[in-house]
Amino acid sequence: MEREELYRKLSVTNEKKLVLVVLDGLGGIPVKGKTELETAQTPNLDFFASGSELGLSHPLGIGITPGSGPAHLSLFGYDPFKYEIGRGILEALGVGIPVTKKDVTARGNFATLENNLIVDRRAGRISTEKNREIVTFLNERLQKIDDVDVRLCSGEEHRFVLVMTGENLSDALTDADPEGIGLPIKYAMPKDDISMKTADVVNQFIDTATSLLGDFHPANTCLLRGFAKYPMIPSMTELFKLKPAAIASYPMYRGLAQLVGMDILETGKTIEDQIKTLKANYSKYDFFFIHVKKTDSYGEDGNFDAKVKVIEEFDYWLPAIMELFPGVMVVTGDHSTPAAMKSHSWHPNPFLIQAAFQRTSFKQNLKFGERTCAEGILGNFQAIDILPMMMANALKLKKYGA
Amino acid sequence: MEREELYRKLSVTNEKKLVLVVLDGLGGIPVKGKTELETAQTPNLDFFASGSELGLSHPLGIGITPGSGPAHLSLFGYDPFKYEIGRGILEALGVGIPVTKKDVTARGNFATLENNLIVDRRAGRISTEKNREIVTFLNERLQKIDDVDVRLCSGEEHRFVLVMTGENLSDALTDADPEGIGLPIKYAMPKDDISMKTADVVNQFIDTATSLLGDFHPANTCLLRGFAKYPMIPSMTELFKLKPAAIASYPMYRGLAQLVGMDILETGKTIEDQIKTLKANYSKYDFFFIHVKKTDSYGEDGNFDAKVKVIEEFDYWLPAIMELFPGVMVVTGDHSTPAAMKSHSWHPNPFLIQAAFQRTSFKQNLKFGERTCAEGILGNFQAIDILPMMMANALKLKKYGA
Repeated sequence: MEREELYRKLSVTNEKKLVLVVLDGLGGIPVKGKTELETAQTPNLDFFASGSELGLSHPLGIGITPGSGPAHLSLFGYDPFKYEIGRGILEALGVGIPVTKKDVTARGNFATLENNLIVDRRAGRISTEKNREIVTFLNERLQKIDDVDVRLCSGEEHRFVLVMTGENLSDALTDADPEGIGLPIKYAMPKDDISMKTADVVNQFIDTATSLLGDFHPANTCLLRGFAKYPMIPSMTELFKLKPAAIASYPMYRGLAQLVGMDILETGKTIEDQIKTLKANYSKYDFFFIHVKKTDSYGEDGNFDAKVKVIEEFDYWLPAIMELFPGVMVVTGDHSTPAAMKSHSWHPNPFLIQAAFQRTSFKQNLKFGERTCAEGILGNFQAIDILPMMMANALKLKKYGA
Repeated sequence: MEREELYRKLSVTNEKKLVLVVLDGLGGIPVKGKTELETAQTPNLDFFASGSELGLSHPLGIGITPGSGPAHLSLFGYDPFKYEIGRGILEALGVGIPVTKKDVTARGNFATLENNLIVDRRAGRISTEKNREIVTFLNERLQKIDDVDVRLCSGEEHRFVLVMTGENLSDALTDADPEGIGLPIKYAMPKDDISMKTADVVNQFIDTATSLLGDFHPANTCLLRGFAKYPMIPSMTELFKLKPAAIASYPMYRGLAQLVGMDILETGKTIEDQIKTLKANYSKYDFFFIHVKKTDSYGEDGNFDAKVKVIEEFDYWLPAIMELFPGVMVVTGDHSTPAAMKSHSWHPNPFLIQAAFQRTSFKQNLKFGERTCAEGILGNFQAIDILPMMMANALKLKKYGA
């Protein structure tokens, strides 16, 4: 039986609440003998770790370093190799554009056209400020092509996202990108009959934008690639019969949560704001995804100490979650971002699950950390098993078979 | 996404070198309280173990005892249940016959024919010496059938390998073996139209050999089974973008390495010879498979002490590998061969990986051994994950998804 079929069949509702706390990029590797998490003063995590099951979770598989998209799909119980989220969609989510099932998105570059040839695919990496100016200029003049609404959103430097909204749009198009210089504008080609309309809109967009941008050299044309529709993913309600909500301040994670059917709660930028949001909405949902971004940001910056501080800040607020007595609470990462590597890595995530019916450790005075988790009762496991583990611990999964 | 597709997509090259040391049949079970590895004095392995990630790797799956073929495919990153290496090929590799993609091989038995009935399928288990005499006799008289070259190679006792080389050969044949006694010679049948030529060559071979062997009773006919072509396995270069070389003195392991596209380096019979070969070729490749056979041989013999000695001999040479500063080094087995069992077993392999970006143990003064590895940060895992783990640790795998 397929994983999703199993969940649909076995999941039941009850009054228990699940809280999944994701400290983005939590895992690290030792610097002077200790990781960020092992270095952080975390009296509350340590206290709860003693009464929890511990382990290490692999986001996608041993040795595979994940991006945020697939890492979160795994955490939400989905096979990240089954559902690939198109780059256009992720970019749109990343800059905070609301995307619906009627939309097709694409990643765009401003580029330089001279004598009808693309001579720079990045328009000399114009400033983000210049990008915003051009996007505003185009959005004012180019709002509809045939019956399709078009919208541009600025990214960094030469990058933007195009969102097309309309009936019968398709993402089965080839990239409108010559992928080299000294070549003419390349138009999108439909991969099937039903995509002809979308290809026509895309190519009209390129021509119209190019004619409007005459005075904006070096940003006087554009390339479009990674056409993507909103992926068709069954919601967490369909699979797990949960009523889920996301408490995340960064657009990409709000977007990823939205992809699996979570309600996106308004919240502020601090962990304190997020805890307040949790309390205010606690009665309305039975699953909460709380996303803390800064652990990852500081990891990417190589700022070991600042990452330690974010972990300590979360630790300070942990009792405020526990005061709500959630039926099941998990604290983990989506992937590791060791400050020593300044990047995502393949190392498995420290993982803690607290619930009523558990085999906890005999050890006292545990320090919550990667190497304590390695000795935990759960051992090494796959992150896709986290959600069923939470469901089980909340008695929300029936017995399989008689 | 399939495993191999993922590797093709994510693998990149860099200057880092990977060294995979396989002590064949390394793992054991305790005799008087300690395994062979736990008994061996291994100061160098112990020293490196303290700075490495440790675990136990299952060659094929829990409880599955592997042969050398599938165990090595796993170590090289391939699904051993996807690629089955025909017995004819393995036998040919085992006796050191070079096999190419134009060949079809088969395992053969000399057998006894009386009154047109097979009365002994093993020709009274003739001596290996007698076997060699017969094979030389046949090879001198029977070199070509139609346009196909045929060659026999002696195995032990009544066993031999037949290699046919020619155009349009196929291995879709039924066995030419009555599988019982008191039955007439059984001919190979083609399983499809394109196999008719090969079946015809095989059956002419049986008839001609039988007529030539008239005076060699009890070895006066032969049976052929396990027809096999060279398997179509993507090379390690295709999957992992590696330039791989094998340093192995035994033919079967050289053959297995050749199947996945490794260059086979000339080397001697001792570990010292193998280390010299490694040094001499170190600049030319970025992946080295070093195979030490005798741990397995002594395990199969039930010679606990001699197996201990081979482990100690390898330990003596380990610093010579480390002096090359490989980016990633793994020391493990392909499967366990406990001296107490005198056979391959299902017990997982002790495993050590040393690289730059690791979570090593807190523990000092580790003894490298099965039970230390069981407490290692990697836990129990599948051997097929070893190659991606090595690639990740060498930063040769890109991130999956954004």
